[in-house]
Amino acid sequence: MGGPLHGIKVLDLTQALFGPYCTMLLKDLGAEVIKVERPPGGDMARGNGPFVRGMSTYFLSLNRGKKSLTLNMESQAGKELLLSLIRKVDILVENFKPGTMEKLGLSYAVLKQHNPRIIYVAGSGFGQYGPYAPKPAFDIIVQAMGGILSYTGEGPGRPPVRPGASYGDIAAAVFLCIGTLAALHERDVSGEGQFIDVSMLDSQVTVQENAFVRYLNTGTIPQPLGTRHPVVSPFAAFPTRDGYVALAPRGGANDQWPLFCSAINRLELIDDPRFQNGWLRTQHWDVLEPVINEALKTRTTAEWIKDFEGLRIPCGPVNRVDQVVDDPQIKAREMIVDLEHPKYGKFKVVNTPFKFSKTPTKAAGFAPELGEHTAEVLRDLLGLSADEVEAMKKKGTI
Amino acid sequence: MGGPLHGIKVLDLTQALFGPYCTMLLKDLGAEVIKVERPPGGDMARGNGPFVRGMSTYFLSLNRGKKSLTLNMESQAGKELLLSLIRKVDILVENFKPGTMEKLGLSYAVLKQHNPRIIYVAGSGFGQYGPYAPKPAFDIIVQAMGGILSYTGEGPGRPPVRPGASYGDIAAAVFLCIGTLAALHERDVSGEGQFIDVSMLDSQVTVQENAFVRYLNTGTIPQPLGTRHPVVSPFAAFPTRDGYVALAPRGGANDQWPLFCSAINRLELIDDPRFQNGWLRTQHWDVLEPVINEALKTRTTAEWIKDFEGLRIPCGPVNRVDQVVDDPQIKAREMIVDLEHPKYGKFKVVNTPFKFSKTPTKAAGFAPELGEHTAEVLRDLLGLSADEVEAMKKKGTI
Repeated sequence: MGGPLHGIKVLDLTQALFGPYCTMLLKDLGAEVIKVERPPGGDMARGNGPFVRGMSTYFLSLNRGKKSLTLNMESQAGKELLLSLIRKVDILVENFKPGTMEKLGLSYAVLKQHNPRIIYVAGSGFGQYGPYAPKPAFDIIVQAMGGILSYTGEGPGRPPVRPGASYGDIAAAVFLCIGTLAALHERDVSGEGQFIDVSMLDSQVTVQENAFVRYLNTGTIPQPLGTRHPVVSPFAAFPTRDGYVALAPRGGANDQWPLFCSAINRLELIDDPRFQNGWLRTQHWDVLEPVINEALKTRTTAEWIKDFEGLRIPCGPVNRVDQVVDDPQIKAREMIVDLEHPKYGKFKVVNTPFKFSKTPTKAAGFAPELGEHTAEVLRDLLGLSADEVEAMKKKGTI
Repeated sequence: MGGPLHGIKVLDLTQALFGPYCTMLLKDLGAEVIKVERPPGGDMARGNGPFVRGMSTYFLSLNRGKKSLTLNMESQAGKELLLSLIRKVDILVENFKPGTMEKLGLSYAVLKQHNPRIIYVAGSGFGQYGPYAPKPAFDIIVQAMGGILSYTGEGPGRPPVRPGASYGDIAAAVFLCIGTLAALHERDVSGEGQFIDVSMLDSQVTVQENAFVRYLNTGTIPQPLGTRHPVVSPFAAFPTRDGYVALAPRGGANDQWPLFCSAINRLELIDDPRFQNGWLRTQHWDVLEPVINEALKTRTTAEWIKDFEGLRIPCGPVNRVDQVVDDPQIKAREMIVDLEHPKYGKFKVVNTPFKFSKTPTKAAGFAPELGEHTAEVLRDLLGLSADEVEAMKKKGTI
């Protein structure tokens, strides 16, 4: 057991969402993640609501199963302690403002002298270089600057809408994780680590490759489209009697258009020359949409799904979050996990999406209290005695 | 050079977006990706617009630098050829409907007898098991079923909005890539491959962890919020005289609220007890938003950004895609890459977001013509002669 990264040790200097989401994935995959927190407050996300029974659910979810060690990197003794730990771990992840580690005398150039195998993973808002490198960033800033807000919305002329999830942080976090794992394999081969620089803004561009490629090669600027697809139709969510249904009948060689028209009882559309393929249907959407809307409004989402499923037309309800949690597929895949703690009680978090045949893994462990594992980590990795740890605590090093 | 995955060979049976985005990342990271396409048409995405000078820009972007080999897996000779290739590669990726490879006699159980080191990566809409396993899925279906549409939109009571990018496909693709790389490291250690199952719907739940954790532990169902954050305020995009500006002044211990109020010349807000922290400001947003909107409408986005940057308040414009392309940071980071082809000419695609110190890599190579590398791959990997390849072609195996 233990997941595919069993045996890998990560020193995690990150806070908030971007970095901790990356190290959450590493932990879920089986790595040991040691969260290094600055005393006295630690990760600022410990203060993010909502709180339940005194526990920040925001913090709990991102930090389940990690260990927490307090360490003051501004003190000389703290720096030396960090360097001792660097010699014992495989990966360091940080999402400080670029230049922070250099100023502390803890740059990659220094760290690799202490451990040439260390993989140094640097996440930041705008990257380690370039004119915006020193600028602060949060999710809404990079989602706005990266372009997605400009074409997420009800339609042309309507105000921009932010995708509900923190994709500015999370897109960067998954790429940070991919870069880390690619470097880990490279180290398995070469024996040497390296430095990886991933930015939130760059990551925004990479996840939107299709919108950019369309603009770069045709000059067409993406516009807000409600729930529609820019190229293929129908491919959208439509109002029903009691909610919304998402529909995406196949186009191309096996066009399901005739099947779809028959399902919604609009047989006259089948041979209409304006609607003979997905691209044409997009061109004539202003004519087509009201016809489809009128047909679909007459029955419930569940009724429509039963019909469309019978025809093998791709479809699904527009679920609220509570409905997703109750979904039989989500249950069968065990995507919601219970975490229990003797002091805080039982909480629920979202599982990791990886199903491995040989090294199965899932979200496990509670979020650590600030410094909960300081003595344990210093004993296990560095052989420090309880007295030595106590002395460091008195000095304010940990 | 060559990227951290240099030397790794991937047999890529995927089509459309989800699978090919994963193997695009593997290629960008340095792996050799051999795209196996079914004759006569190959990947259906070859037919996806927009076309420029006869090239599908959609297909080009996702398949840059891959090799294309045609192979008919339904024929006995094609199956045998695939098994010969399996013995020579490290990773197989497919995003067929679950059960497809079993029906062809090419299940993981069979493949690992031919190559115990093979990593078998299976992406699907709903996963390899569970009641929805056989159902077809597209991006809009899983984004709808996964919940994000229900809380992406202008506000409560407004219709659902689809995040503009295909996050249903792309979230799954990045997790598929992470699973692959974690298994690759595990194989570096153990010498054995394994099977990985990642679904689009599961991936939707994992990327929305914060929304789910809030609901699961407090019972609050996420609602559409325009560009706002569910917990902290201000954290949104606001209309200016000529566009929108995104603003996220820091909260918490170093609350920038007084600075922000002074920047927008609303000093009376500084000490108002309703606005003393991010959570309170969220509670009183109905009062606060019109005041901020009125202040910000008086000047241009560029003017506001100059002021807020001077105060180090996190801010940025809501860019259109064309503005992102012209952004100096995007240029400094070389996030747009030219690809040139003797027949098709010059195109632009989005770069990969990884900056590695030792094994640098970027998006490179053109998308292959259907079967362009069939003879080359069969010669290099299996030692087949031109005559043997020709005979296979005549038989319809390739």
